[in-house]
Amino acid sequence: MGAVIFICDGLGDRPATRHGHRTPLQAAHKPNFDRFATEGVGGIMDIIAPGIRPGSDVAHLSLLGYDPYEVYTGRGPIEAAGVGLELKPGDIAFRCNFATVDSNKALIDRRAGRIKKGTTQLARSLNMDLMDTQIICKEGTEHRAVLVLRGSGLSAAVSDVDPHRDHVPVGAAVPLEPTKEARHTADVLNAFVDQAHKILGNHEVNAQRVREGKPPANIILPRGAGVTPQIEPLSSKYGLRAACVAGVGMVKGVCTLAGMDVLDVEGATGGLDTDIGAKVKAMNKALDTYDLVLVNVKAPDLCGHDHDFEGKVKVIERIDGALRDALPQDRWIALTADHSTPVDVGDHTGDPVPLVIRGPGVRTDNVVRYDECSLATGGLGRIRGRDLMLILLDLMGVAKKFGA
Amino acid sequence: MGAVIFICDGLGDRPATRHGHRTPLQAAHKPNFDRFATEGVGGIMDIIAPGIRPGSDVAHLSLLGYDPYEVYTGRGPIEAAGVGLELKPGDIAFRCNFATVDSNKALIDRRAGRIKKGTTQLARSLNMDLMDTQIICKEGTEHRAVLVLRGSGLSAAVSDVDPHRDHVPVGAAVPLEPTKEARHTADVLNAFVDQAHKILGNHEVNAQRVREGKPPANIILPRGAGVTPQIEPLSSKYGLRAACVAGVGMVKGVCTLAGMDVLDVEGATGGLDTDIGAKVKAMNKALDTYDLVLVNVKAPDLCGHDHDFEGKVKVIERIDGALRDALPQDRWIALTADHSTPVDVGDHTGDPVPLVIRGPGVRTDNVVRYDECSLATGGLGRIRGRDLMLILLDLMGVAKKFGA
Repeated sequence: MGAVIFICDGLGDRPATRHGHRTPLQAAHKPNFDRFATEGVGGIMDIIAPGIRPGSDVAHLSLLGYDPYEVYTGRGPIEAAGVGLELKPGDIAFRCNFATVDSNKALIDRRAGRIKKGTTQLARSLNMDLMDTQIICKEGTEHRAVLVLRGSGLSAAVSDVDPHRDHVPVGAAVPLEPTKEARHTADVLNAFVDQAHKILGNHEVNAQRVREGKPPANIILPRGAGVTPQIEPLSSKYGLRAACVAGVGMVKGVCTLAGMDVLDVEGATGGLDTDIGAKVKAMNKALDTYDLVLVNVKAPDLCGHDHDFEGKVKVIERIDGALRDALPQDRWIALTADHSTPVDVGDHTGDPVPLVIRGPGVRTDNVVRYDECSLATGGLGRIRGRDLMLILLDLMGVAKKFGA
Repeated sequence: MGAVIFICDGLGDRPATRHGHRTPLQAAHKPNFDRFATEGVGGIMDIIAPGIRPGSDVAHLSLLGYDPYEVYTGRGPIEAAGVGLELKPGDIAFRCNFATVDSNKALIDRRAGRIKKGTTQLARSLNMDLMDTQIICKEGTEHRAVLVLRGSGLSAAVSDVDPHRDHVPVGAAVPLEPTKEARHTADVLNAFVDQAHKILGNHEVNAQRVREGKPPANIILPRGAGVTPQIEPLSSKYGLRAACVAGVGMVKGVCTLAGMDVLDVEGATGGLDTDIGAKVKAMNKALDTYDLVLVNVKAPDLCGHDHDFEGKVKVIERIDGALRDALPQDRWIALTADHSTPVDVGDHTGDPVPLVIRGPGVRTDNVVRYDECSLATGGLGRIRGRDLMLILLDLMGVAKKFGA
């Protein structure tokens, strides 16, 4: 027993027009990826369904065996869980940016100069009770934060306060459906943003920033409202002790909501600077304790978004190096991606992702190269993201029989 | 017109660790299987969905085109239909064992020494009316029997009376939901088991067994309660005249519930001793009369459960020999399995099963070997169990058009 879902974020690609019509995987030197392909069974996987472009949040839910059409309620609750806020049923959660507005409340900098220090104090100053609603605010990385509204009569059907671009006035949230709850929630949200603007404007952290010539984080911009999702933890759904190794808050959030332990790994970030070797080490160690370990390496996705072919090739080769010593033969590894982020596109596409499962009992096929095109002829054929967890449970011998 | 679904029960396997990392299909000499693969179109098939471990009952429903999540109500009704009991809507059916208990009602032998003779008389003595409920009991093979409760206010939400292992006291059935009907059914069931214990204890068949030093079949242990399923017969669902050739009561039961004729074949059993040649002959003959013939050969599954690699290889070669003269070229045969029972595992797994369809009009592919790995590259790709019937209907030219 013991399986790893190793997610190279955004790994899938399309043949790049200016790079010999090859995908980054086809261009990279990656002997360990190829070894897994040779020893394992391969295929391609539609994270949701063919042609559907998945966000990373939805994709990770799917890879953990959940139906995102059933359980996904928006990004807010996932980010809130990702920074360690414990959500209660009925909570409405938002992602937020600390931002800078001028005296007319026109947006000057949607990221408040990518503020790094002082957000803990700023967020803490925004916890309050307002209109019978408890307001909980917590900082994330850099300018990011989360907001939770807790109380009765709330709804997630409210628009973003965040105008999503600079140089426009920050307006008010509006209800997105004609219900008392949506109206009330918009009112609470707008009252909070006003109140927060006053508090932040007078905050010592911002006074210091102004003295240093930096844009003050004098407003908070909520977006992506979502009610706490109802997600049955993996422990009760499948009887699995599960953990995750990830740098990105969103992945930690999904895993937390799935009842997984989030492991703290020194040097593991969501950036290009992440220590992939440390992640692999943590993964191998975690297999002593856990039945399932999800690992996410965000870096390939960043290169995809940046149209950076060479960067993506290099990241693949770095992951390959880290995988050299990964995993004894008696454990299972599913080496895959959460979606494709082709460098020619610069965004998530609906292309299926490459997948190899290596471990005891798999029906080894003839594929010896780990890339999108080679794996399309693999023994797994074309499966869906939600199938993966069930296949792993079956390989581990813990799947329940249907019928007799 | 005329198609066969030829089910080698539990045929699918995984590369066996102690046998050169080959599956029994890869190790067997099976020129006729391979000829079908060469002449036909191949693929792999998830009986339910990837990773889902199907029971044989559920699998056969799926292969006949039904959605088991919709129609499956438990094993009891299937076994009851398999021994020829005609179920009515609302009937609650159970599988039972005749068993032996001591004077404290502790279970000594869950199979009453695999009693072979006299069960017809024993079962007949247990038909009665009890608490406004008609009790129908009928013997199966050896120690097996079925029980049907017929009356109003009954429910299938009752626990097993069978404790499933020896040397424990036989307890009482309990309701599995807080309803009047479940309570009433548990009461009827417990009253029946008590009454049956008294009748069986005084039965001449058992007196004779005791005289012969054999354990008496002095109790009956119901399990697997299920209400009569609502299954539209193949005749009205697809306009098919259909029959089955099988040795196992469960398969006969599924086919009976699907409105198929169960053909009596001399020498066809559910064991390793089954006359496969006789089954194939009966199948060929049945095609004169029927549009669809389902054949089940249970033997490969038995070897899988017994971890018997060589046995499974031999059974495959026996089936192969019997298939030599099978089927004129103008009929269709789907040569497949109901699930995988890998010898390394010894139980059903969720691995997809191999499938070849041979017959007029199929898109012949390049696969020339009938095994799990070769067929994964076949022209059918990876399909679901319920797809098979629709594909056969289409090949036979009797599928209805959707749209205009």
